[in-house]
Amino acid sequence: MRPRSQYQGGSHDKTDKVIIDELRTPIVLAPMAGGPSTPELAAAVSGAGGLGFLAAGYLTAGVVRERIAAIRQLFAGTSTTGSPAKSPGRSADGVPFGVNLFVPGAPTPGPRFAHYLAELGREFPLGDAKFDTDDWDAKLDDLIADPVPVVSFTFGCPSSAEVARLHAVGSEVWVTVTSVAEAHTSLDAGADVLIAQGAEAGGHRGAFADSPEDDATDPLTTLALLQLLTAAVDRPVVAAGGIATGAGVAGVLAAGAAAAQLGTAFLRCPEAGTAPMHRQAVTEATPTMLTRAFSGRRARGLRNKFILDHPDAPSAYPEIHYATGPLRAAARSAGNPDEVNLWAGQTHSLATAIPAAELVDRLSQEAKATIEKALSHRIHSY
Amino acid sequence: MRPRSQYQGGSHDKTDKVIIDELRTPIVLAPMAGGPSTPELAAAVSGAGGLGFLAAGYLTAGVVRERIAAIRQLFAGTSTTGSPAKSPGRSADGVPFGVNLFVPGAPTPGPRFAHYLAELGREFPLGDAKFDTDDWDAKLDDLIADPVPVVSFTFGCPSSAEVARLHAVGSEVWVTVTSVAEAHTSLDAGADVLIAQGAEAGGHRGAFADSPEDDATDPLTTLALLQLLTAAVDRPVVAAGGIATGAGVAGVLAAGAAAAQLGTAFLRCPEAGTAPMHRQAVTEATPTMLTRAFSGRRARGLRNKFILDHPDAPSAYPEIHYATGPLRAAARSAGNPDEVNLWAGQTHSLATAIPAAELVDRLSQEAKATIEKALSHRIHSY
Repeated sequence: MRPRSQYQGGSHDKTDKVIIDELRTPIVLAPMAGGPSTPELAAAVSGAGGLGFLAAGYLTAGVVRERIAAIRQLFAGTSTTGSPAKSPGRSADGVPFGVNLFVPGAPTPGPRFAHYLAELGREFPLGDAKFDTDDWDAKLDDLIADPVPVVSFTFGCPSSAEVARLHAVGSEVWVTVTSVAEAHTSLDAGADVLIAQGAEAGGHRGAFADSPEDDATDPLTTLALLQLLTAAVDRPVVAAGGIATGAGVAGVLAAGAAAAQLGTAFLRCPEAGTAPMHRQAVTEATPTMLTRAFSGRRARGLRNKFILDHPDAPSAYPEIHYATGPLRAAARSAGNPDEVNLWAGQTHSLATAIPAAELVDRLSQEAKATIEKALSHRIHSY
Repeated sequence: MRPRSQYQGGSHDKTDKVIIDELRTPIVLAPMAGGPSTPELAAAVSGAGGLGFLAAGYLTAGVVRERIAAIRQLFAGTSTTGSPAKSPGRSADGVPFGVNLFVPGAPTPGPRFAHYLAELGREFPLGDAKFDTDDWDAKLDDLIADPVPVVSFTFGCPSSAEVARLHAVGSEVWVTVTSVAEAHTSLDAGADVLIAQGAEAGGHRGAFADSPEDDATDPLTTLALLQLLTAAVDRPVVAAGGIATGAGVAGVLAAGAAAAQLGTAFLRCPEAGTAPMHRQAVTEATPTMLTRAFSGRRARGLRNKFILDHPDAPSAYPEIHYATGPLRAAARSAGNPDEVNLWAGQTHSLATAIPAAELVDRLSQEAKATIEKALSHRIHSY
């Protein structure tokens, strides 16, 4: 076990540093569960001076353990040639990376989604609409037994006791939030860092609850949420959503973010596990949409026939996720992009097919150039 | 008539300067038709070194002429004590400001909105659901006869011939866009500057067409649109939507915007013509929504009963705007915020009740501080 001081995080003392302060570049790889996230991608981002993340969602605890081991091994390789983060508080063999967990919700009563599955079942092969906790207890126990620098959460906030367990073993706790209320809940529970997920983000909304009745008051954007959060709380905020370029990174940093988290921007990297069809689809100028059709929880993906055909899919996660597994797998095998969830953020067409370390370098250099230009050309006289 | 060279704009030569380059601070006052925009507010922003805008929408050409005269007179006063823009190419009595026009659309066939008005008519006093062009021809003729530095457009793009007429008298042409396609159309027509309006913006969407069938592929956010536009075109982009703080201003500038346009942030300034009920309502943490219920065109406002009661209001602008005039007026008189359009952007709760010139100063200083901090704390090593 690593002592808590090793990672400098996990404290409520606002003067404490967080791992972001030790990175060579404030670029965080968004966890992308369901394929794109690989140990190779995480290790490449960390090796280039950013912070790689492993998406533990949809995996068993055993597979997560294997992937964590793989990241450590890969990083040991990249760090000799790459640019390891300078980390005064971290041991020489410390690997800067994070693991993201889905916070389990409650089962949805069957009658609320039976009609939708009956409708799908007339046309598609379906799986068992089961509820589970995504192996939550085992994953959390493993992260206590063998800690990692950062554990981030999506779909909710861990309890104060769970946060305390992670703090006790030296891990920083980051919580994904989509509103000021969720930020306060997270800080009350002891979170060290907030990930502000804007409306433009690809994949699932990280909101604590998936409430169709709130859809009309549509989600706050990255820029709006960032300003609202920094006005309301005094902890580091990582901005996520719609960031695809160095200018985008510069924008959120200048707006007060401690770091920028990018997911879609890395989908085309060779190290990503992105399916070929998905890799190709993001290059096109297809609009994105929020949908519950594939998973029973609101997520942003490329517009396709399945999403358009099911605009009123109910909220029932993970039941609908499991039920649509076979239909998604069949479409993927058949090379049919009309019936697959092609998660992507609004700026997906700007994603580039270059190695992740090169992308981190490019984003960092572009960010520096655009921020310097803004300072010298636009607000020099103040 | 002012000679064209006076304002340095209006050219397709990409090396030409635009008026933004001459401002002391790259802060643009968003035109807010229907009350909030006043000559006093525009003059105060211009006097503080930004660029004030007069909203010509909903006004007759005659009233617009009066307000332009008022801005010039007011600015002559503020410029002696304020901080006039340094403008090598502008005459000593030049006033840096802009006028915003609504581009007229086509009438909507009555049967498309008759049902909605019949429904409203059972409960509310309604006006004549007329179509008009918002005095377009007269306003444009007046701006040719007595030019202003900048003419911006919302709800569409003027024709190449109309742009050429404005260029010929020395005015810069700015067009509000919400997509890359609209940006290309605008540049083809000769626009000098694009205003990128993100999803988070308050008031009407500036999209060229109001298409309910596109609602599901919900609007691009400010940060997303900014990155997509700067990747696609090589003209100055003014970012609009959700910018309420100096950090927000810094964010869009660092992300590549030539200037930040703010509307909601100025709603509580004493110079604004904002109705008292509206002024109070924006201070509360009410969520915003996109709605067609009041005007027949999608706009973002504070959630209230009327919007919630009419989620499927049809697209028919300005017919529904005119029809709901009496009901909005009645509710305003009665101090009833449930039946009034309280337009506001997503960050409305951050608006401050201070004089506009002071707000411009504060935003500029905060922007400089946050951008310098980002540069020194976050990306110094690159």
